[in-house]
Parts: sequence; structure tokens; C-alpha cells
Amino acid sequence: MNVVALAGGIGAARFLRGLVQVVDPARLTVIANTGDDITLHGLHVSPDLDTITYTLGGGIHPEQGWGRADEHFTVATELRGRYGAPDWFTLGDRDLATHLIRTEMLRDGVSLSDVTGRIADAWELPFTLVPMTDDPVRTIIETDDDRRMHFQEWWVGEQAASGVAGLFLDGVADATLAPGAATALEHADLVVLCPSNPVVSIGTILQVPGVRHRLRDRPVVGVSPIVGGRVVRGMADKLLPAVGAEVSAAGVAALYRGFLDGWVIDTADSGDAQRIRDTGVSVGVTDTIMSSIDVTTALARTAVELLVP
Amino acid sequence: MNVVALAGGIGAARFLRGLVQVVDPARLTVIANTGDDITLHGLHVSPDLDTITYTLGGGIHPEQGWGRADEHFTVATELRGRYGAPDWFTLGDRDLATHLIRTEMLRDGVSLSDVTGRIADAWELPFTLVPMTDDPVRTIIETDDDRRMHFQEWWVGEQAASGVAGLFLDGVADATLAPGAATALEHADLVVLCPSNPVVSIGTILQVPGVRHRLRDRPVVGVSPIVGGRVVRGMADKLLPAVGAEVSAAGVAALYRGFLDGWVIDTADSGDAQRIRDTGVSVGVTDTIMSSIDVTTALARTAVELLVP
Repeated sequence: MNVVALAGGIGAARFLRGLVQVVDPARLTVIANTGDDITLHGLHVSPDLDTITYTLGGGIHPEQGWGRADEHFTVATELRGRYGAPDWFTLGDRDLATHLIRTEMLRDGVSLSDVTGRIADAWELPFTLVPMTDDPVRTIIETDDDRRMHFQEWWVGEQAASGVAGLFLDGVADATLAPGAATALEHADLVVLCPSNPVVSIGTILQVPGVRHRLRDRPVVGVSPIVGGRVVRGMADKLLPAVGAEVSAAGVAALYRGFLDGWVIDTADSGDAQRIRDTGVSVGVTDTIMSSIDVTTALARTAVELLVP
Repeated sequence: MNVVALAGGIGAARFLRGLVQVVDPARLTVIANTGDDITLHGLHVSPDLDTITYTLGGGIHPEQGWGRADEHFTVATELRGRYGAPDWFTLGDRDLATHLIRTEMLRDGVSLSDVTGRIADAWELPFTLVPMTDDPVRTIIETDDDRRMHFQEWWVGEQAASGVAGLFLDGVADATLAPGAATALEHADLVVLCPSNPVVSIGTILQVPGVRHRLRDRPVVGVSPIVGGRVVRGMADKLLPAVGAEVSAAGVAALYRGFLDGWVIDTADSGDAQRIRDTGVSVGVTDTIMSSIDVTTALARTAVELLVP
């Protein structure tokens, strides 16, 4: 069975640790969001790609869920202290090596897909990891107080302090679905939406031309990132209203209307189950808090078996 | 008195610590060699500019004479260990911050001169530091066994193992003397050649169009990098024969024929003094081994006072 997973960062990376126990990793392709990508100190940073790579490659900071374990910050300290460089986004030293490798290859004309493959190989990832597109796209946040900024400036720089009036994916009209992503979707027997932010992670991937129509004729199952009517982490509660969606398991499922076939929700949200089923979507109810690899594997199994028993 | 110093790396940097005690640093411009500049991991590295900056700014590794004190190598370890990046030239973490700042500014279209000024300001250098040119020039070594490589690959990568059949400065024909260097030379009351490699440091600066003719009508004093018929450090002994010069205090002075007015040699080379005087060059004889700041200051004073008593 060929499986494709659409993925954001931390939540997706954790979920994938379970998914690779349930499906054959050699036939799994993970398509990651690159709308959060940002250029910092001249380096191309791909937070979601790296969070997935570090998590599945065994190098992630375990408590934080992003960045490297046993990280050092000598370069960042110099950049700030000596050169007064902007300090709202801190790059660790180990992490920086990845950005240097990526940036150098991109400048040499290598596609982001090929760069990602090279980095994934270095981390011996058991599946294929591809960016959603090789083209530059950027999630721009429009705040309540009428400012526009890169998603990372809002999220990391301002700690999501401002409300969100709207958001858009700059460059997406000219973006092409990455070749590996297109091929994988065409051959997918199952597509899994990881428990990622439905607006700035999964929602971003869905905006890339060619994704939605490919999902329509595939079995698509998703895992709700909402637990008990709240976000597990992140800021979906600020972003869902900006796209007119309800902050609930049912509200997120509704965003995927038209292609979603199965939806796994937390036991705390079982009250939403009937409402979702009424839209023609199969519902699985289980523990979605990924507190251990066993729980995570069981969650992934529930998702897969909801459509492929 | 306006003073201009032509400088390479370690030897020049040490000498400048004395020179700033002897002349007014506010009226001193240091023109540094950039023929050794190299792109590593996509970053623009300027070894001589940085050695001067770190030494005069108080951040140099004291024993090594290059690189940063209290340096760490987390990024380099990751680049090699994780990504298999070339490891013949190691960039420390603190040092890397400088290359990141430089590379980002250059990519933004800022000239190397302006970048250098910005970095020098961060280190509170008391004089003006300028690259010899803002244009890309590269010293290429042609080895005895008929290979061509960047100077750093020969010097750092191969530890200068091969003999040198020849060398050239790639790009120099199209290079323009940096504006700050041109202006400083035009207003110089004294030009000092630091005790740097006469072939790949001072010799490189001399090749930039406009330097030699500007030196002809200025008082020019140099400090010999040869002590007791040998190089103090570096590889001038391998390089001098490649440009047809004798490895001696007199041999180096001869390379500067046509514009050299004064030459400071070590007491160990006093046997060369008459031969040099016979070419019309004033000679100072003193201790040129810069073992302490006092000796270095005395050496700088000898050089300056040889032409400006």
C-alpha cells in the first residue's frame, strides 16, 4: 500500500513516529509544508522539513519538539552580541549546519526537493520526504491592527500576540507541486492528514495547485489537531476564525470537505462525531494525545484502518 | 600624518598592534589582501581581513594567530559528521558569525568595502580597514605536478606539500582598487608594507591596477618578513622562487624595486644591508621578531622614523 502523509511540523513529526510502525516506510511519502520557510542571516530555513527530519532521524530536542538535542548557540550569541543581528529567531549551531548545507545547494541550483532528499539521506529517514513545492511561497499574516508580516515574525517574533485578520500564501499562484509530491499523490492508496495546523500547515499544502484535485479521488483520512475543542499546541485557535472555521474537531473536518473520507477525533470530542458523520465522513474516536510511542502507533493504526481495514 | 599600511594576515596583524602605538590610528588606513578569500559552505571568507579585525579587536586566538579565542566547532562537526561536507578548512562557530554577516550583506548588494567597515565598527577598530578591491580576485597556485588550485587548497588543504611552479591572481585584470584604498593612497604621507608574504599578500595587493603607480610618488617603507634568511612563518620560501626572487631580506626588497624607499631588516640579516642600500633604499636594522608589544612598537617606530624622522 502506497501511503502519502501531508505534514506540518511538531505534531506531524510526532505522528509520523507512529505511522512508520503501521505502514511500510519504504512506500510512504511525506509532503511537508514550506509556507513557514524563511531566510535568516542569508540562510534558507525550512522549519517543518527540519522538524520532521530531526524527529524521525533521532536528533530532535525531545522536550521542545523542534530544534536539535544537545544544541549550542555560539553562532547566535556572536551574531547578536557582536554584530547586533536580529535576534527574534534563534538558530542553534547544530541546526545551522543543516541550513548551510541547504542554502549552499540551493544557490548551486539544486532543487529544494533534491536538497531535502540529500538531508533526509544523511539522517537515514526510512521514508521519502518532499517539500510541497520547490518554488518560494511564504505564509503572510495580516494582523488585526493592519500589519502584514511573515508567519514566523508573527508566530515566533511576536509570540502570536496580535489577532489575525487574514492570511495568504504569497507566491502560490506561480508555484508548482514538487514532482515527488505529484507522483506520490497519483500513486497513493491512502492519504493521511497529520494532526497539524489546518490553516498554516495542511491548509498551505492544500493551496498548492494540483493537490486538492488529486485528493478528491483518493481515500483521505485525517487526524484532528483539536482536542476537547482546543488546540493541542500552536495557534490554530487564532487562525481558524480567520478562515471562517470553528475551533472544533468538526470545524477542522469541515475545512477538508470535498475530499475527506475519514476523520480521527479525540475521545474528548466524541460529541462532534455525529455531526461529522452527517457530512459523509467516517469517524474514528480514540486517544489523540501522543504521550508515548505506543499511543502514537495506536493512533496511526486507527487512522489507517478507518479507511483500509 | 596620513599613513597607509598594506597588509596580509597574521604578520601584518601583529605588526599593526605596534603601528597604532606609533601613528595616529584615526589617520591610518589598512589595505588588506583579499586574494586568499574563499567561498566555503556558501559563505564568503576573508582570512586576512578577519585576522586583522580579530587581532586588533581583541578577539584573536592568541597562540594560533588566526581564528577566534575561545572558539567552538559545533557547526563544523555537524557539517562533517552529519553531512559529509569537505573538512579541509575548518570554520569555528564564532568565526562563522562574521562570515554569515559578510555573506548576507554581499548578497544584499553591499560592497566588500562597506561590509568590512561594518564589521570593523563592530570590533571598534581604531583605524580604517579596507579590502584591496571589492571585486572577486583569487590567488591560484600552479603546482610542480601541474595542478591548479585555489591558494587555500594548496596552503591549508594540502599543507603546502607541493612545490609551486607559478601562481596568478585570477580576476585581477578586471578588478578595481577599492575606493577607500585609492583615496587613502592618494593622501598618504607614508606607506608601510607590513611584514607579510611578499608574493601572496603584499604581492597580491601590488597587482591591483592603480596600486604600483600610486606608490611611486609616496614614501614607502617596508618591514622584511625574512629573518636570518628564512621566513618567520608561512611559505614565502616556496613562493619566492616561483616569482624568481631570492629568499632573503635583500631578495624581498628587490621585489619592491621602483617604489621602495626604506626597508627594515632583522639584525640577523644585517649582512644584506649594504646590498639593499646599493639599490638606493634606506635600511633600518633592528629586532623584527614581534615577541612582545614593546618589541613590536619599537619595530613600527623604526619603520616609520626611517623615512619620517
